[in-house]
Amino acid sequence: MSTQSTPSLGIEFTTIRSVKDALTLASAQKYDFLVIPIIRKQYGTDLLTNYGSKQLAWPAIASRLKGVGESADMSTALVALIRHVVDVDSSNVHIRNKATKLLQEELAAAQYFSVARVIIRIRNGNITNLTRIAASTLNTLYFAYWFVFPTRVQSNSDDGDDDDAELQPWLWWNKIYKLLDYHGKVYPVLELSADVPSEQAQKRWLGEPVRAVILPTKIFTTNAKGFPVLSPAHQLFIIKLIKLKVQFIIKGINPRDSTLFEPYLQYLKHVTRQTEPTNRVLESFTHGYEDRLQVPLQPLADNLESRTYEIFEKDPIKYIQYEKAIYQALIEKYDQKKPVTIMVVGAGRGPLVNRALEAADRAKYNVHIYAVEKNPMAIISLHAQKQEWGNRVTIIHEDMRSWQPVCKADIMVSELLGSFGDNELSPECLDGAQRYLKDDGISIPYSYTSFICPIQSPRIFSELVYNRDANKPYYANFETPFVVYLHNCFFLAETKPLFTFTHPNFSNPIDNSRFGEVEFTIPTTGTMHGFAGFFDAKLYKDISISIEPNTHSKNLISWFPMFFPIREPITLSANSTIKVNFWRCCSSSQVWYEWTVVEPTTLPIHNPTGRSFSIGK
Amino acid sequence: MSTQSTPSLGIEFTTIRSVKDALTLASAQKYDFLVIPIIRKQYGTDLLTNYGSKQLAWPAIASRLKGVGESADMSTALVALIRHVVDVDSSNVHIRNKATKLLQEELAAAQYFSVARVIIRIRNGNITNLTRIAASTLNTLYFAYWFVFPTRVQSNSDDGDDDDAELQPWLWWNKIYKLLDYHGKVYPVLELSADVPSEQAQKRWLGEPVRAVILPTKIFTTNAKGFPVLSPAHQLFIIKLIKLKVQFIIKGINPRDSTLFEPYLQYLKHVTRQTEPTNRVLESFTHGYEDRLQVPLQPLADNLESRTYEIFEKDPIKYIQYEKAIYQALIEKYDQKKPVTIMVVGAGRGPLVNRALEAADRAKYNVHIYAVEKNPMAIISLHAQKQEWGNRVTIIHEDMRSWQPVCKADIMVSELLGSFGDNELSPECLDGAQRYLKDDGISIPYSYTSFICPIQSPRIFSELVYNRDANKPYYANFETPFVVYLHNCFFLAETKPLFTFTHPNFSNPIDNSRFGEVEFTIPTTGTMHGFAGFFDAKLYKDISISIEPNTHSKNLISWFPMFFPIREPITLSANSTIKVNFWRCCSSSQVWYEWTVVEPTTLPIHNPTGRSFSIGK
Repeated sequence: MSTQSTPSLGIEFTTIRSVKDALTLASAQKYDFLVIPIIRKQYGTDLLTNYGSKQLAWPAIASRLKGVGESADMSTALVALIRHVVDVDSSNVHIRNKATKLLQEELAAAQYFSVARVIIRIRNGNITNLTRIAASTLNTLYFAYWFVFPTRVQSNSDDGDDDDAELQPWLWWNKIYKLLDYHGKVYPVLELSADVPSEQAQKRWLGEPVRAVILPTKIFTTNAKGFPVLSPAHQLFIIKLIKLKVQFIIKGINPRDSTLFEPYLQYLKHVTRQTEPTNRVLESFTHGYEDRLQVPLQPLADNLESRTYEIFEKDPIKYIQYEKAIYQALIEKYDQKKPVTIMVVGAGRGPLVNRALEAADRAKYNVHIYAVEKNPMAIISLHAQKQEWGNRVTIIHEDMRSWQPVCKADIMVSELLGSFGDNELSPECLDGAQRYLKDDGISIPYSYTSFICPIQSPRIFSELVYNRDANKPYYANFETPFVVYLHNCFFLAETKPLFTFTHPNFSNPIDNSRFGEVEFTIPTTGTMHGFAGFFDAKLYKDISISIEPNTHSKNLISWFPMFFPIREPITLSANSTIKVNFWRCCSSSQVWYEWTVVEPTTLPIHNPTGRSFSIGK
Repeated sequence: MSTQSTPSLGIEFTTIRSVKDALTLASAQKYDFLVIPIIRKQYGTDLLTNYGSKQLAWPAIASRLKGVGESADMSTALVALIRHVVDVDSSNVHIRNKATKLLQEELAAAQYFSVARVIIRIRNGNITNLTRIAASTLNTLYFAYWFVFPTRVQSNSDDGDDDDAELQPWLWWNKIYKLLDYHGKVYPVLELSADVPSEQAQKRWLGEPVRAVILPTKIFTTNAKGFPVLSPAHQLFIIKLIKLKVQFIIKGINPRDSTLFEPYLQYLKHVTRQTEPTNRVLESFTHGYEDRLQVPLQPLADNLESRTYEIFEKDPIKYIQYEKAIYQALIEKYDQKKPVTIMVVGAGRGPLVNRALEAADRAKYNVHIYAVEKNPMAIISLHAQKQEWGNRVTIIHEDMRSWQPVCKADIMVSELLGSFGDNELSPECLDGAQRYLKDDGISIPYSYTSFICPIQSPRIFSELVYNRDANKPYYANFETPFVVYLHNCFFLAETKPLFTFTHPNFSNPIDNSRFGEVEFTIPTTGTMHGFAGFFDAKLYKDISISIEPNTHSKNLISWFPMFFPIREPITLSANSTIKVNFWRCCSSSQVWYEWTVVEPTTLPIHNPTGRSFSIGK
């Protein structure tokens, strides 16, 4: 099964005679849509000339669409190219007013013909009036705005700063998106040129909700067989864009045959095939979850469903690592002649029990396993396996924190980790269980560390802004950590470690509250919308499982990253410093995180007293 | 009647033997409250020493208050001085944890004894943990936090930057207030030193909700009569602080008599008398309205009440200016021998009709006045005066925009101005009325201009954050311009002009929409919370009325400034630039403003399509 379908493809015509003919041409060559100006150039000129002196008849504006533009299919087959937008930000009030009127009429025409997308080319950062007009239509007109940006500013001189030339268009977009308060009907579209963006610039754009990419025919070269192809560097960038599910627009004419567009489509289909996932396991696990916000599980407070266990048991690497760790611990630490007591605390449906048995069999050790589980439904699943396990396994239906066993464990095995390591209260659970770990007993895992990284993720921010729960305070969404498969985002810096927990913990009293201040230096300009969170857990010695990007265990799929939002996006220039404070707070019944940014600007403390999100003990 | 009552006064003791004796001493000398540490120093030392090894009995913490601290009066008579706060931000986790526990116990003790205010001295900017602990109590404990700041950092060397030494404490406060999201139970308290703050530093602090001022006895000198007095510069600053209704705290001992505090109280009473308002008219009009947010009147869409007219008719200067303008227009522009037609459009209860008659009498001109008014209730008031006016006045009950008169006006007099000039739709009304102004007729006023200025006003911002209407979207408060008598605020720059309207307006078509981009340079560090708005109106030639601070007409009391909020406070360093965009937008039935900031950061467009606030035509 291929999860990567062919992108939607369009052709842009800057001037056309007949809309009908153009549509026929495009659809004959298997293109999905057409980008055309919906008003005749003449109409704009007339209006600008006669502004104020007479009113033109409205229908004149879009007479070219009469007949063709009135069928229901038009909404998908046409993308309206909006002309005359530059002058709405003229410093001359008369030019500005005329241009505003014209733009408003163009948009009204697009609406009348049920166009679903309009394209507006942005050529500089002088865009506040244009953006205000867009803002005024967002809740009344139905189409989406596709703002087109070059990948670099055309500089007249050669002494221009290369980084800056690439940065400017992104700054224009950043300004538009902020002015429009991250509205969900607003997207950037990239128009590629012969110069491929630098890696940093690519990453920055890949963090934006890019909806389409315009490929001018002139950036294609011809291969040995006479077909149009792109340079390898272009192709690599395009492969990354395809993963964001962008659409493509071919612009300009085929120099070999002005009406032949199919070779470009063939080429893009060919490139798309190269984006087929190489890792089908990972792909099938993540597909459809890209950037989707999920409230973290609370397996301690809530009993998981069998289905949830089943999903996580499919992890191809996690249990291999546990088996390795148990095996290695057995042979390195224990005498093969003596029985070893292993307690699996939080046994769930039993996968770790199976792995412990396998490890013991492989090492030829005599083990007795206690499977401790509080979830009464999971206990049923455990008992179902009892026949197979025989006397080697004792099933205990108890909360590990209150169970009073008759003997102590040599090895205590648990998997109570959340995306942020401690966020499913592994520390609190294991602290409660270590009473029955022998003095020289070991915990698998014996240590885990959370990691954070500031990220640009406007798509997620937009979702937080617009999908507020009306029954909750306005800040609630921004004070809730989410589990999310981060896809359309840009990592602004290297991840850094935050909180570490080790087991067993012989401190007295044990204090699982934490405070951390972490500083990041941002190598290149971007906008921060929150922090990604990860963990790295040491099972036994250097046998570990990790979702921290630099040490991510291959094929480990059980955990998506965490996302901690911030209430206001912060645009950061290159080499600036972010200073963040994170707290892990504990009360008698709850654990929660609080966080804030204190540099380069100070934000309110997020989630004080766990008011928006906390984890029940 | 004095509107300035004596400030509440307290004495701070850093060490005392008996709370009861101290209270007796303070009240005998007419002080209102006492600032004392509520836990014994020894308790803190014990706790820090024994942390983790044993639990001290809780009551020990505040045993000194037993007996004295349990009466209801204590909540007002005592302010709890919190010790040991520095270590909660130690980088050493053990010290930090101990200090946190101690601080939490101190705060719990303050709560137990119903203390209404706690004082915490801030000595550097390393305060995130302290602030987090405060945040965690704000919604459960009842007392207010008074954070005490020096007016300048004590620098060890002489080469320190003077501005910076004054700026640092304010930055600490700014950080605390932002971290606590402008909570209404959090205040700054200033501790004065021998050095009086510079004028900029004074202004910045006067823009904060300063709740109290601590005066160490050592900054007083002794006057010829042997009484303690402050330097003239200190005194001037204190007079400004008294206007913010601060409380005063005397700290330290009287060098002449360690138990005698009354002379300080006498001195402060003496200074307070100097703050008595010199302008009783203005004072009586503004008293009680300081920083109170009012939704602007909409006299066009709503009919005003008689009471509202009555208040505004009390203005001691507005009508004098109108009379002057009409008089001057008559004698300069018209022939004394011919009758002059004056139309008062929007006549209300008739004050401008009276002034026009007085001007004509004084100039000895023969005038006929049409009093045009749409409000049916105001018409009753007009008719009540008809007998007195006789045939010289014709009362017309019509909307000026639709009235069809039989003759045209020489002079059209109106007062349709709002705090922002055009915000009560004077332009739309006068455009509709100018049909019946003679070709060479004049409008009084003939021009008005709105002005804006970025301001720091955390008190107002706090009100907007915490007094949200649960039935409105979360952003509504921040997209509504308010009328407000600005008091506890700091003007970050010079005001600049925005929109101008002139009458009569012979443009065709008339366009009353406007766009303005205004740049401000900020001379000194501050936090912007929004824009103040003003107007300046030209009645006839240079006869004007203005509320713009640089040209404010003396005693003009009818208009308080406008305030345009912004959604996120922006802290600006000295010499930074603010670039703001303002739009006046018009539809067939509504007029509204949209605004945003695009430098140094970009905010969302505020109030798009007038979604949160608009003015009905």
